[in-house]
Amino acid sequence: MDIFAELDQVLTQRKGDSPNTSYVASLHHAGLNKMLEKIGEEATEVVIAAKDAQLDANDKQALVKEVADLWFHSLVMLSALNLESTDVINELAGRFGVSGHDEKASRTS
Amino acid sequence: MDIFAELDQVLTQRKGDSPNTSYVASLHHAGLNKMLEKIGEEATEVVIAAKDAQLDANDKQALVKEVADLWFHSLVMLSALNLESTDVINELAGRFGVSGHDEKASRTS
Amino acid sequence: MDIFAELDQVLTQRKGDSPNTSYVASLHHAGLNKMLEKIGEEATEVVIAAKDAQLDANDKQALVKEVADLWFHSLVMLSALNLESTDVINELAGRFGVSGHDEKASRTS
Amino acid sequence: MDIFAELDQVLTQRKGDSPNTSYVASLHHAGLNKMLEKIGEEATEVVIAAKDAQLDANDKQALVKEVADLWFHSLVMLSALNLESTDVINELAGRFGVSGHDEKASRTS
Repeated sequence: MDIFAELDQVLTQRKGDSPNTSYVASLHHAGLNKMLEKIGEEATEVVIAAKDAQLDANDKQALVKEVADLWFHSLVMLSALNLESTDVINELAGRFGVSGHDEKASRTS
Repeated sequence: MDIFAELDQVLTQRKGDSPNTSYVASLHHAGLNKMLEKIGEEATEVVIAAKDAQLDANDKQALVKEVADLWFHSLVMLSALNLESTDVINELAGRFGVSGHDEKASRTS
Repeated sequence: MDIFAELDQVLTQRKGDSPNTSYVASLHHAGLNKMLEKIGEEATEVVIAAKDAQLDANDKQALVKEVADLWFHSLVMLSALNLESTDVINELAGRFGVSGHDEKASRTS
Repeated sequence: MDIFAELDQVLTQRKGDSPNTSYVASLHHAGLNKMLEKIGEEATEVVIAAKDAQLDANDKQALVKEVADLWFHSLVMLSALNLESTDVINELAGRFGVSGHDEKASRTS
């Protein structure tokens, strides 16, 4: 199972948990607006980290972490609306000449 | 080959092309600030689309497209700094109990 | 009349004009989502311009222009919801020990 | 003295204070990146609040507060770079047919 399939499964499991059991559960308890605030925050941190990484290669790992934060909060938000990473990946695959179906098949083989 | 490995390959290939041959090449020609502006734009469009999708399920596909746009421009920006999706995926994998190494192995098997 | 009172008046006048008569009218025709996209874009451009101005003082005027763009689009958006600069200025005044009433009086004296 | 002149004065005074004496001083101590993160956060909160205010007029005051937060953090950031509200107001005035000089004169009369 690849990381996105696993992430989708973890995010679905934690969605209904009580708020203090995990960060994901606390975000669902706080609601969609809180998740969207996090997406705005993390996008800004990506912009700042990229400017810093452009000047100093030592800041590249910090940039990677910010992008991971941005993608992660995107997935939590999608989960709140009953969507998941597969939807985004199929959309990306469709744009790059790999059919979503084939792409999913290759990932699960 | 999964979609992210393929995307990384495409993004690397188009990086050095002349600006008018592809959108990716035009972004590299415009520079890092232009890519970061797009990340800010797309993040805002995700926020707006999520609010709309919360009210009307018909808007869910539009939201998926905006998240795909946000992730896509993140990858173009990472490519400009010689980073790629594997870096982000390993970071996410490390946070969720799948080792980056194992995860990469499972994806390429 | 100060600049904000004048801006509020201009924004109110242009609100109902046909879309091709002014940029403000075109934003009202495009709708609230378009205005919010602009706010997200301009906020990102402020962040990028501030990072550049920190390195090179020659970029300071560019930063001032981006902040003006951000504030301007904030006011157009408020106008769409029948709010105006006075509301924001009274809120700021209330936080800094100047009563909104007194502040407004001092501005119009 | 109008609210923006007063704000500029307060922001300049607090710039060099020790971090725990005020929120403004704490932002200067934290540095430019922290201020820019706040601008990104507040811009996102403006977008979310505007979508909510569009549906429910009771949310309009919350929107005004978010715009005030956005403008306030813009001014703190400008202060860190030795700029101030007058620079933004002159830029806005110049775009709307009021000369910055005349505008400043009318405000201080």
